[in-house]
This record gives sequence, C-alpha cells and structure tokens, in this order.
Amino acid sequence: MTHTIRDKAKLLARVRRIRGQVEAIERALETEAGCEQVMHLIAGMRGATAGLMAVVVEDHVRTHLVDSQKFPDALNGEAAEQLLDIIRTYLR
Amino acid sequence: MTHTIRDKAKLLARVRRIRGQVEAIERALETEAGCEQVMHLIAGMRGATAGLMAVVVEDHVRTHLVDSQKFPDALNGEAAEQLLDIIRTYLR
Amino acid sequence: MTHTIRDKAKLLARVRRIRGQVEAIERALETEAGCEQVMHLIAGMRGATAGLMAVVVEDHVRTHLVDSQKFPDALNGEAAEQLLDIIRTYLR
Amino acid sequence: MTHTIRDKAKLLARVRRIRGQVEAIERALETEAGCEQVMHLIAGMRGATAGLMAVVVEDHVRTHLVDSQKFPDALNGEAAEQLLDIIRTYLR
Repeated sequence: MTHTIRDKAKLLARVRRIRGQVEAIERALETEAGCEQVMHLIAGMRGATAGLMAVVVEDHVRTHLVDSQKFPDALNGEAAEQLLDIIRTYLR
Repeated sequence: MTHTIRDKAKLLARVRRIRGQVEAIERALETEAGCEQVMHLIAGMRGATAGLMAVVVEDHVRTHLVDSQKFPDALNGEAAEQLLDIIRTYLR
Repeated sequence: MTHTIRDKAKLLARVRRIRGQVEAIERALETEAGCEQVMHLIAGMRGATAGLMAVVVEDHVRTHLVDSQKFPDALNGEAAEQLLDIIRTYLR
Repeated sequence: MTHTIRDKAKLLARVRRIRGQVEAIERALETEAGCEQVMHLIAGMRGATAGLMAVVVEDHVRTHLVDSQKFPDALNGEAAEQLLDIIRTYLR
C-alpha cells in the first residue's frame, strides 16, 4: 500500500502557485525581459519549490515513518521535530 | 537598458519542460499518488530549475558583466570559467 | 535522555579530515594562494561537511525516531529509506 | 599570474572561527553529546562556510573578472551586483 498525502487542497494550492511562477518565467523570456528579472523569477520559484518539498517531507515523517494506528506511541515526537528542523535549514 | 537573454528558444524549451514537471506533480496529488512518488517528482523539478538557473547565470556572466562591444578584451575568460565552475557546484 | 551517536570512530575520522581541509584553506590564505584555489578548497570542505551531516542524519533517523527496544517493528524501513534518499539529494 | 585574495586578515578570522566550530564538533562526538547537538553544530559550521565562500566569490567577481588597471570602466557594476545577489541566495 502506498501512502497518500494529507492536506491535498493546501498542497495543490502551493503547486498551482508554482505553476503560475513557471508561466511568469515563460512570459519573461518570450517578451525578452532583462536577465536580472528572469534570475529573480527563477530564484522565487526555487524558494517555493523548497517550501513545497518541506511540507511533503514533513507529512512523510509525521505520518509514514510509523503506522500510528498499529504503534500509536512509537514515533519519538521530539526526535522527529529535530530532524525536520535540520531538513528545513537545508531546504531553504 | 536591460540585458536580454540569448538562446531564447533553448531556454523556453527548458522552462516548458519544467512546466510539464509541475503539471505532473499536480496530477500526482490529484490522483493521490504515493508520498515517495511526489517527493521524487519535486526533486526532479528542483534539479531542472537549478539547471535553468545555471544557464541564465552563465549567460549573464559571459555577456552582461562586460560590454564586449565597448571593451572587447576586458573580461578575463579564465576567471569567468572558474566562477561558473564554482556556481555550478552550488546549483546542483 | 539524549541520544548518542553510533560509529563514533568513523565520524571522528570524517571530522578530522574536515579539520585538515580547514587548515589547508588557512594555509592557502596565509601564503596568498590564488582565489580559484581557495574557492576549490572551500567547495571541497563544503562537500565533506554535507557528507558528515548525511551520516549523522541517517543515524538519527535509523536509531532515534523510534525506540527499537520498546517498539521493535514500528519504524517503516521503506519509508525511512525514501526519506534518506531525498535528504541525500539535498545534502550534496 | 594568479589572483590573490584581498582582505586577508578578515578572511583568516572567518576561517579560524570555522576551525573552532569543527573542533567543537570533534569534542561533541568525543564526549558523546546528543545527536541533535551534533546536527546543530554541523548546520552552524555549514552556514559559516557558505558565508566564507560568499566573501571569496564576491572578491573574485569584483577584482578578477576584469583587470581594473587595464580596463578601469569595463566591469558593469550593476550586473555584478545582480549576480552576487543571486549567488548569495544559493549560498545560504
């Protein structure tokens, strides 16, 4: 069995915002916008992608590393937070 | 005067590929695909975004740091390559 | 109770190698080595630091997220591997 | 001719601070400190290393891409700032 993603609506909203950012890059290139504008648009999209990944990884850690129905108290919440804290540092 | 991007067609092809990757993430969420599949799709899109940024930065360094019409020999090509080499390491 | 690190000897060897790399950067600056050499030394040290972090995070995920003595079967090994796979992508 | 680094003293101070951070990681492992403390020490050192790289790259862009004695006005200062701005985003 695969693990589905919680909070589907929120994640879809994030992905659609990223799609809008990609379309803005496309338009910037088509209208021959300045290089610096294109670099900033890409950097913004990269940040949004990192934010999306952070949410999905967080969901994965909180809900899939341990089956909380079978093992309700097994996940060490503090250790999970420490891990997510470090991952977020690297995902910026 | 702003600086426009060279090789517009190649860059547009890259951006459209990234748009396709974003749409694949959207579909994966809509069809409730597994978390691991979504994480891999995002990681792939992030890699493609880094590749796009690398090309735009390279273009910026080679064509905009020095106005090659006014100062044809001023850009130190070796120093520019060393810089791009380091930037590519960080853009992976 | 805090969680100590396994494989202390291997980790210490990694940290000492990084210390050697930092000392090489120091010497390069003191002897006024070229900028490109200093950039490469820093990039190498950064890679080694990412490798060290990957090992510590892996240890953290495998041994601290779930107390394997109290809950021997609770950690979903496959989900943990998927997580580490993604983390390694970002730690390069 | 290679290009030497300006502001040697400031850079050396940065490198020595990083050496101190590496030594703190070494001590933390030797005294079997908690995993979370070790992860934070490594994350701190990684940030300091990114800061060092940013300074060296900045120096490289400002002083080595164009020989300012031979071509005093050739480097486009605005384009150089835009580049450094983007590089700093990635160097965090």
